[in-house]
Amino acid sequence: MVSTEKALDIILNETCLGGIEDKNILDSLDRVVSEHIYSKDSLPPFNKAAMDGYALRSEDTLEASVDKPIEFNIIGTAKAGGSLEKVLHSGEAVKIMTGAPVPESADTIIEIENVESDGEHVFVKEAVKPYRNIIEKGEEVKAGDIAIFSGSLIRPVEVGILASLGYNKISVYKAPVIALIVTGDELVNIEAKIETGKIRNSNEYFLKAIMKNEGFEFISFGIVQDNKEVIKQKILVAMEIADIVVTSGGASKGDYDFVEDILVELGADIKFDSVAIKPGKPISFATIKDKLIFSLPGNPLAAITTFQEFIVPAGKKFMGKKSSVDIFPVILSDDYICKKGRKKYIYVNIQKVNGVYYGHKIKWQGSSGLVPISRANGIVIIPEGKEYVKSGEILNGYFIWK
Amino acid sequence: MVSTEKALDIILNETCLGGIEDKNILDSLDRVVSEHIYSKDSLPPFNKAAMDGYALRSEDTLEASVDKPIEFNIIGTAKAGGSLEKVLHSGEAVKIMTGAPVPESADTIIEIENVESDGEHVFVKEAVKPYRNIIEKGEEVKAGDIAIFSGSLIRPVEVGILASLGYNKISVYKAPVIALIVTGDELVNIEAKIETGKIRNSNEYFLKAIMKNEGFEFISFGIVQDNKEVIKQKILVAMEIADIVVTSGGASKGDYDFVEDILVELGADIKFDSVAIKPGKPISFATIKDKLIFSLPGNPLAAITTFQEFIVPAGKKFMGKKSSVDIFPVILSDDYICKKGRKKYIYVNIQKVNGVYYGHKIKWQGSSGLVPISRANGIVIIPEGKEYVKSGEILNGYFIWK
Repeated sequence: MVSTEKALDIILNETCLGGIEDKNILDSLDRVVSEHIYSKDSLPPFNKAAMDGYALRSEDTLEASVDKPIEFNIIGTAKAGGSLEKVLHSGEAVKIMTGAPVPESADTIIEIENVESDGEHVFVKEAVKPYRNIIEKGEEVKAGDIAIFSGSLIRPVEVGILASLGYNKISVYKAPVIALIVTGDELVNIEAKIETGKIRNSNEYFLKAIMKNEGFEFISFGIVQDNKEVIKQKILVAMEIADIVVTSGGASKGDYDFVEDILVELGADIKFDSVAIKPGKPISFATIKDKLIFSLPGNPLAAITTFQEFIVPAGKKFMGKKSSVDIFPVILSDDYICKKGRKKYIYVNIQKVNGVYYGHKIKWQGSSGLVPISRANGIVIIPEGKEYVKSGEILNGYFIWK
Repeated sequence: MVSTEKALDIILNETCLGGIEDKNILDSLDRVVSEHIYSKDSLPPFNKAAMDGYALRSEDTLEASVDKPIEFNIIGTAKAGGSLEKVLHSGEAVKIMTGAPVPESADTIIEIENVESDGEHVFVKEAVKPYRNIIEKGEEVKAGDIAIFSGSLIRPVEVGILASLGYNKISVYKAPVIALIVTGDELVNIEAKIETGKIRNSNEYFLKAIMKNEGFEFISFGIVQDNKEVIKQKILVAMEIADIVVTSGGASKGDYDFVEDILVELGADIKFDSVAIKPGKPISFATIKDKLIFSLPGNPLAAITTFQEFIVPAGKKFMGKKSSVDIFPVILSDDYICKKGRKKYIYVNIQKVNGVYYGHKIKWQGSSGLVPISRANGIVIIPEGKEYVKSGEILNGYFIWK
């Protein structure tokens, strides 16, 4: 049995970056770019009006005041999208719209609401500093500069930058393909009635939901019969088509648990076969060549917890993503009695009151059911060595499924 | 000009819940369920073994000790998925696998690792309390109970619950369909070269990216010519097919800005035409019948900020979602000089050090470019009445695009 920290170290040490692929910029959202994105242009590509107003020469306004407005002849209009070739002389102004290129002979813009105009002339009542309301060419980014660094996560703002720089495709790290093999003769399809001894296959669905949220790709083999040869064949197929193979069920010590035997037969390098975590102790991790094989416990609470804690970080690393969880202190509102020897992941309802986080017990927390933990929005961790914690004690916690 | 708070109040007051639709449970992820989900079964549906071990009658073990183990005859094996009909008598045990139904005549399970066995007999060396390692029928949820309350967000755990209860479809609130009309004669397609006065159409892409992240549905009309009749026709079409219409560009006071005129001609109820926010003052909001019409400023930084602050909350409310932003105190690392009269949304890089958030200035922050704000991960808000804030001051802040 290894500690949770050691388990995660081992997993991440075996997880490589996935390959790269080209994606349309909208499909690159939430992916990580695999190379620097250089700006092919300066942005803005010209001196640009930041406001609607009048472009003029700042030196012409030095003497302007409310009492002695200075009059300018309006010699034209610069619209966004146009290019006005006119040259301004002293005493002349150009009416200009937001986003329009500023004529080269003008160096400032006074806002439309701060002047008076009769349509042919504009009256300026203040001295206007140079470059007021002008966004200078290349102020945002210059041609040849790195606009987005390799390894950056593509968020909406980066999608916008890519569009503004003329990229319609970029190279990003692939998402892992995860094959899901859910075993257990007690499982029936979700539409089936449940006869004695049977439960419906929920693991397949919540694991798919987590993978969907994380942007992982997934292939499910459905409910796989609890038969060694059948499971072995599915694992062999899964290794052909997936980067990561996840089995659920068949991980504990019972007579009908074949997965570890199969892994041995396949020559897997079994890195660990249990972790000091509750729920979820019987999680195992192995590698065969460059494939990662995880065996999750069959019970839903253990499966959802260990998938989130161990497989999600591996999938993120494969995609080039950082896997940081924002951990913060949580004050417990209740007592908990537990056993030493494993880190206890307690699902709680975390509420923030005056900037302080409080963790409230949820009704019941056995090691199998999901209904109670649906009342939770976070987890607090009771350290391995603790047998009890009391109301008022502070533990590390974090939000889940946000 | 209305305050940001007033603007959001007005918008949310006009935003109704969207209709409902049926979704497969995996597609219901990140949607809100529109009715209570009742449990059709008790879960677990039988007394279930929580561990691999031996099921027996606890009263038979009262005298057991390390020195005087008690011997039980193994009369059968209960596997997960099976149903063992045998009745245990005093001195008898059933080997049982995790997840298997517990024979009715047994009331406890001792773990496999805490006994010795020769295959036919098992030797128990301790008194075993009743219900040890047994998950009782209905302990998670009872038939007829509400398993998921109407109005709950469907997260991975709820997808799992739905599967375990035999639901393959549920009724959820619809996502809004948002029509996007990007105008501006300065705009060219993202693959075009940029001639003088032109910039590429980035607004369409980052707005789509935000909508994709939020699960909104969207229809884009591409770049729409800055012509009153053309824009009017597009708005009319958009109102037929969408719940929310968003224009970008054409919202400020320039001669070529038609959107407000069109809204008046269409008999729109214009709720406000500017907000005390920087960037983004010229955002307007109107309703025509039950359709919401937003006009965003054309400059990208103003468009991305106002879409996030005003349209995302409306879209979430349409979907039945809560729209809470986690706001926390941020200590500034830099000084900022600004103008009174509007709330200033400053993009910063927020770092957490020893549990305290610090906000670091990013290089440049004009009112149009996106490249600088891609160095940011959060926003701090300078109140309307402030003209400057100094390093060390504390402002409200939050993370963005997480």
